[in-house]
Amino acid sequence: MSQSSTSASARRIHLGAIIQGPSGNMSAWRHPDAVADASINVRFVHELARQAEAAKFDLLFVADGLHINAKSIPHFLNRFEPLTLLSALASITERIGLVGTLSTSYSDPFTVARQFSSLDHLSDGRAGWNVVTSPLEGSAKNFSRDKHPEHALRYRIASEFLSVTKGLWDSWEDDAFVRDKARGVFFDPDKLHTLNHSGEFFSVAGPLNIGRSRQGRPVLFQAGASEDGKGVAAEHADAIYTRQETIPLAQAFYADVQKRLAAQGRAPDSLKVFQGISVIVADSADDAEARYQETARLVTIDNALDYLGRYFDHHDFAQYPLDAPFPDLGELGSNQFRSTTDAIKRDAYERGLSLREVALEAATPRPSFAGTPEQVADGLQAWVDARATDGFIVRGGTPTAFTDFATKVVPILQERGVYRRDYEGATLREHLGLDYPVNQFARTA
Amino acid sequence: MSQSSTSASARRIHLGAIIQGPSGNMSAWRHPDAVADASINVRFVHELARQAEAAKFDLLFVADGLHINAKSIPHFLNRFEPLTLLSALASITERIGLVGTLSTSYSDPFTVARQFSSLDHLSDGRAGWNVVTSPLEGSAKNFSRDKHPEHALRYRIASEFLSVTKGLWDSWEDDAFVRDKARGVFFDPDKLHTLNHSGEFFSVAGPLNIGRSRQGRPVLFQAGASEDGKGVAAEHADAIYTRQETIPLAQAFYADVQKRLAAQGRAPDSLKVFQGISVIVADSADDAEARYQETARLVTIDNALDYLGRYFDHHDFAQYPLDAPFPDLGELGSNQFRSTTDAIKRDAYERGLSLREVALEAATPRPSFAGTPEQVADGLQAWVDARATDGFIVRGGTPTAFTDFATKVVPILQERGVYRRDYEGATLREHLGLDYPVNQFARTA
Repeated sequence: MSQSSTSASARRIHLGAIIQGPSGNMSAWRHPDAVADASINVRFVHELARQAEAAKFDLLFVADGLHINAKSIPHFLNRFEPLTLLSALASITERIGLVGTLSTSYSDPFTVARQFSSLDHLSDGRAGWNVVTSPLEGSAKNFSRDKHPEHALRYRIASEFLSVTKGLWDSWEDDAFVRDKARGVFFDPDKLHTLNHSGEFFSVAGPLNIGRSRQGRPVLFQAGASEDGKGVAAEHADAIYTRQETIPLAQAFYADVQKRLAAQGRAPDSLKVFQGISVIVADSADDAEARYQETARLVTIDNALDYLGRYFDHHDFAQYPLDAPFPDLGELGSNQFRSTTDAIKRDAYERGLSLREVALEAATPRPSFAGTPEQVADGLQAWVDARATDGFIVRGGTPTAFTDFATKVVPILQERGVYRRDYEGATLREHLGLDYPVNQFARTA
Repeated sequence: MSQSSTSASARRIHLGAIIQGPSGNMSAWRHPDAVADASINVRFVHELARQAEAAKFDLLFVADGLHINAKSIPHFLNRFEPLTLLSALASITERIGLVGTLSTSYSDPFTVARQFSSLDHLSDGRAGWNVVTSPLEGSAKNFSRDKHPEHALRYRIASEFLSVTKGLWDSWEDDAFVRDKARGVFFDPDKLHTLNHSGEFFSVAGPLNIGRSRQGRPVLFQAGASEDGKGVAAEHADAIYTRQETIPLAQAFYADVQKRLAAQGRAPDSLKVFQGISVIVADSADDAEARYQETARLVTIDNALDYLGRYFDHHDFAQYPLDAPFPDLGELGSNQFRSTTDAIKRDAYERGLSLREVALEAATPRPSFAGTPEQVADGLQAWVDARATDGFIVRGGTPTAFTDFATKVVPILQERGVYRRDYEGATLREHLGLDYPVNQFARTA
């Protein structure tokens, strides 16, 4: 038996792995080591899932989007749909959680509740839903809508959507299905609950045609750092996916979430915060920098202008001089990726950057953590020990960086006693240390 | 090498296997041999899929429904959702087709096109969509709708829905994704097609964010024997799922479909007809009858009244005297399972049946084919040789009957040279002998 080399008080870390095409940047598919068609390659995703499970990751995390055009990021053009992808991965994995992104702005609660619950049963309690409201204006045009709902409205819809979904997931109590062959009793009618929801946006009768799973119901992630987003998270979510740039900012975010939980009467540990990060693991800091540069060089200035444009409703930045100061865009971008576009504008004006500089910086993001395996492990621990986060959703900063992380950084975290050597629980909820959710309709004994 | 024992002119048979809970009847879950929770049991569906693939079935077929209440058929109360189930099965099978039911009345073409295409990629060209328009009135109440659209309207919606879906599936030509690392060219912009559909029911811009699959696009099944249903099939479908009672009726159906195909300018072999059948395989005709009776006896009269009620919008038949003539129901049921309810009424009045007789006959259907393996094989061949059908979607008439069929009847069909000994093609389209679909936007050379 091996022993932990750190004190028992060190906080445990939670880890998720992103599945989203070749990792690094928008042009990383050009890297000699990249699987160029990774976003639609079955063998690639099977291998990534197995690698993450071998490293005892809490979960796999699939991002999503509902609108593309010719200027979109290449691995968004031709990609698996999250629910079908995760269902396929349920059959080739045994313990790792399976979290997929789906928008409440362009779907129906009955279908979403069914599909995620079905994934939860197919994986025996490993499903999670990353709730988003869709940042892209163009999505409306793919869903027979006149216009994309504005930011605050999207979150009001999301809040009601989640109430409905949770209600549907509680249609059947845990022990509703008796299946008594001799008496011919399939279920206990007292444990069937018909929702009959009638609200501002949805009217859903129920019951749902699928029962509770081993973990009760799918784990709810919320992604979106706006005030509205944090409000929905405090009301409904089990976890938050966010991206904060520094420990102090992340601490402030974490404290804010804790305050909102308390206001909802929820326990502090009933919601886990995950930071989305990219990593480069190397033999030295110089080696890490060289690897970053090698991948960054694959991005042309035209690529970078397209990348920047996507955050601003596919705005065409090629119309501006490249080396003049960043143009005044007014309110453009504020109904899409609001927190991102605000940060881009503020940074550009404050630092006096040119369009070229802004575009290349945006399209070739520096890794959140880079260096030797020990340095990367130290970085992760510093964030968790400072209560800046509970864990990380990890993507590689180069096409091979995730493998390096799983095989070189995770063993160090395990050796230090801050990461599991094997799964202790069976369900995603258990991996995350979340309580089993009581059915809202069950009578207490 | 083995030789066929019949003439080369014998028509080949196509076979599909139903996945839908314990087979037999609504109360078959009570049978001593039944897996009572089969509709939500992962091991059960994995085993069934592997068994069907070992017997070289063309496809697995998953039915569906969008409304339940306390009186629904037990295995409809708690069941997997088709797309997630088939995606999970894609990972544990290699060649068998994966066909799932989904309604055009309560879904969005962009999402449906994506999910089926994603299944098609995950299975490397084995996906199929069984298009239905939802017979159950109560579905509307689960999808924030005032009322269920009437029959003809549902099929007008379906026709436009399928045009949109096919258009989205052709967003990218077969060779659109170049992925030239050296030149930095991910795709050829001339091979990207944006649909910009604006119709009576849907406005969908596109492009779809997933490309064509190994079989071009998912195979389209149409289920529904009404005039409207056959019209949609002739316009769009690759296959039809129907249930005709006799060879002459099925021949008439087949001929009618052929005429409709010709009117659309389509080749006679561009659409395959499948009959939904149940089977009981036994040592003798008497043994088959005993097995039928054993399963039929599990159905109580209360079960049977609930079963009948479901076809008539959950009508409560317990209000009528059981042994009086079948009640006059007027138009009740004509907007749901129209062809079924018309047949039930006609049969009851013509034969002067009591409510008890009608309910028990409906709830304990006799197998379409029963007897020794040779007798069942003879029956299937007679239908196919008479050009009454191209194949069968098979369900067991008892909980163990499907296994008997796969292991005892299929080998006889193989021996007779009318069924494949191994898969010749890789895709579902190839199994069915259907041509690869040309992209509607591709310029001919």
